[in-house]
Amino acid sequence: MVKIERFKEMFRQINEYGYTGEGMNRLAYSKEEAQALQYIKRLCEAEGLLYRQDEIGNVIIRREGTDPSLPAVAVGSHIDTVYNGGMYDGTVGVLAGLEVLFALNEEKVRTTHPLEVIIFACEESARFGLATVGSKAMVGTLDLEEVMRLHDKSDQTFTEVIAQKGFSLEYISMAERNEDELKAFLELHIEQGPVLEEIGKDIGLVTGIAAPTRYHVTIHGRQSHSGSTPMRSRQDALLAASEFALYLEQLALEEEDAKTVATVGACKVKSGAMNIVPGEVKLHVDIRSIYMESKERLIEKLHVFVKQLEKKRGVQVTFRKITNETPVLLNEKLLELAKSGCEKRNFTYEEMPSGAGHDAMNMALKYPTGVIFIPSKDGLSHHPDEYTSFKQIEKGIHLLKDILCELAIFPELYKL
Amino acid sequence: MVKIERFKEMFRQINEYGYTGEGMNRLAYSKEEAQALQYIKRLCEAEGLLYRQDEIGNVIIRREGTDPSLPAVAVGSHIDTVYNGGMYDGTVGVLAGLEVLFALNEEKVRTTHPLEVIIFACEESARFGLATVGSKAMVGTLDLEEVMRLHDKSDQTFTEVIAQKGFSLEYISMAERNEDELKAFLELHIEQGPVLEEIGKDIGLVTGIAAPTRYHVTIHGRQSHSGSTPMRSRQDALLAASEFALYLEQLALEEEDAKTVATVGACKVKSGAMNIVPGEVKLHVDIRSIYMESKERLIEKLHVFVKQLEKKRGVQVTFRKITNETPVLLNEKLLELAKSGCEKRNFTYEEMPSGAGHDAMNMALKYPTGVIFIPSKDGLSHHPDEYTSFKQIEKGIHLLKDILCELAIFPELYKL
Repeated sequence: MVKIERFKEMFRQINEYGYTGEGMNRLAYSKEEAQALQYIKRLCEAEGLLYRQDEIGNVIIRREGTDPSLPAVAVGSHIDTVYNGGMYDGTVGVLAGLEVLFALNEEKVRTTHPLEVIIFACEESARFGLATVGSKAMVGTLDLEEVMRLHDKSDQTFTEVIAQKGFSLEYISMAERNEDELKAFLELHIEQGPVLEEIGKDIGLVTGIAAPTRYHVTIHGRQSHSGSTPMRSRQDALLAASEFALYLEQLALEEEDAKTVATVGACKVKSGAMNIVPGEVKLHVDIRSIYMESKERLIEKLHVFVKQLEKKRGVQVTFRKITNETPVLLNEKLLELAKSGCEKRNFTYEEMPSGAGHDAMNMALKYPTGVIFIPSKDGLSHHPDEYTSFKQIEKGIHLLKDILCELAIFPELYKL
Repeated sequence: MVKIERFKEMFRQINEYGYTGEGMNRLAYSKEEAQALQYIKRLCEAEGLLYRQDEIGNVIIRREGTDPSLPAVAVGSHIDTVYNGGMYDGTVGVLAGLEVLFALNEEKVRTTHPLEVIIFACEESARFGLATVGSKAMVGTLDLEEVMRLHDKSDQTFTEVIAQKGFSLEYISMAERNEDELKAFLELHIEQGPVLEEIGKDIGLVTGIAAPTRYHVTIHGRQSHSGSTPMRSRQDALLAASEFALYLEQLALEEEDAKTVATVGACKVKSGAMNIVPGEVKLHVDIRSIYMESKERLIEKLHVFVKQLEKKRGVQVTFRKITNETPVLLNEKLLELAKSGCEKRNFTYEEMPSGAGHDAMNMALKYPTGVIFIPSKDGLSHHPDEYTSFKQIEKGIHLLKDILCELAIFPELYKL
């Protein structure tokens, strides 16, 4: 039996590690994260579950199947947070997986396939600027040269930080798992957006995970005096940036069917002062879609517009590509399984893309993968006020358990 | 004899104080400004000129007249700079005044009226956000309560900073001078705009000084995740700010006949990050005109627009008025005197408004005041590359000297 009271108690206890009085600071590889993992380890030992940590710090909790040679059916997420983050992001998915295992223990259900709960290391980019490090290592896509260059705010390198845990770049490749080790991977996560709440649905069934294409855009105009430069003699970089931002919004709206989004998230005016016509502005641009061709269409139109903008306002615009990730479409059969799961339990659901990245997007490169969303109040995430009611979480756990059981108990029924 | 070589040497030496290798950092009340003033003091002592500093740091250099009881004819400007500013703004006017006094010494000319060169304290708003502090104190319009609230980037208050020079708010009123102390005030300044260069004229004769109306504008939207918030669910404060800035430009263009200008000079996104839809943006807005009614028309239309913007984008916009200064028209008789001065020397000239504020706008409240512009290359100012050729400066010095002599030698000739 899924017991939401047991879940609540775990949720309460784990969020003591890293609580600042306002929000959560449980950064990747921090003392607080280690304490939270140790707490989970104690829970698992009490339940007779196998707890192991791989060479990059991913934790794999295993409930053996009647045929241990079969691939495991896995669920997973992460427990690290951003700076001043909330209590739900990642953590809910991990604890939901544990609650499923505990419920099965209690019910004495035997599954043919083994079950696993995976707690991925360093999912948030907050500490080192690189996200989903643990799941990248697990599927073998981690770029070690990039990892070697990472460092945190206090200038500790990634290498130094993991060395304190006994890990080493030399052995990271041992964290990679074979294709035949997992039958399927599922992630339960808060939506981190307003859609489910706005439309009043219980569950989001994720069709694909949008991948970001990101640029640092610099607009060079000409700095001049705000009092003595006639309007028509100006090369105002901020006005050019304003046109850029509004046109980017328009382009995203033109790609609305693809649910593509585009954002200017940062805007810095060089030596911005009351009495200076801005001469240089830097923008951070983030474009996301589950369809690569939608991003490409948008970016192509953006470049055409920028050429006109340069001419019109006498500015130069330079793009530096920061990342250009490929979107991931999730497993359709798992989606169908989740749909019928919702219908059996009378949960309302919505098929939707995930705008945010998740460990699941890496796992999907190697394993049939599905992602289940539960609503986020006010769409908030990465924020102390992020919230999902226990009632909503409970529905997510039930759905997760139903799918896991279907997959793990009937090995022949579901070919993914 | 005006000697441009002497001026060049002064210009070279004074700009060693605060030169960063790129531009000038000689902020108000800084060590660099103090060193530059000390250099001028040594020059004046060598020339037998009286050098004194008043209770807010204005420096008054005096060449006695044959009738010391008569009001002085004064020229003046400032030597403080903005952050990463140029070598010409303010400094040229001060050194031009000194060069006139040195030339008269050399020629052994005796003037009936005393002559003064005034170096105003804290003309630039760069350090404390308030401009022309010294000249406001001299004419008695400085708002002490406002001054008490000022602080610089490093959170040093104005009060603390002037205390280090031995000054105190308590005695600032002693810097105020009587109406009968000065017969006239003249300021030579670089144009800080592109007009003289564009039309190929030597001298700008300033008809009035546009006064700024300034606001801090805060736009509150809603911070959300850039990946998981659909475009139509956003309350993006930066997009609202972009519309605001572009509409402000349009309003200024509608007031083009009045030569009114409007600028968003600073734009700060709260916790601006790649993956966050901006929730709060602060703008600094600067609106200038020599016609109060033109500014008022513009601001009225701006408020109407903002109401629509709030509704359209689901944001709240708040205005905090920083300053709302009244434009100043300059003395017509001085303008006529300058005109005939130009004609005698075959200098081409243009009557024009000053878009930038100057100490002269405060002095004009109490004394007959004139402002003379010389061209700024590419209209640049408050910029390391600001430039005016020594040939152009020399013309300005000649004109200044001619006017000063007319006014100071013939007490009865010019009733201003």
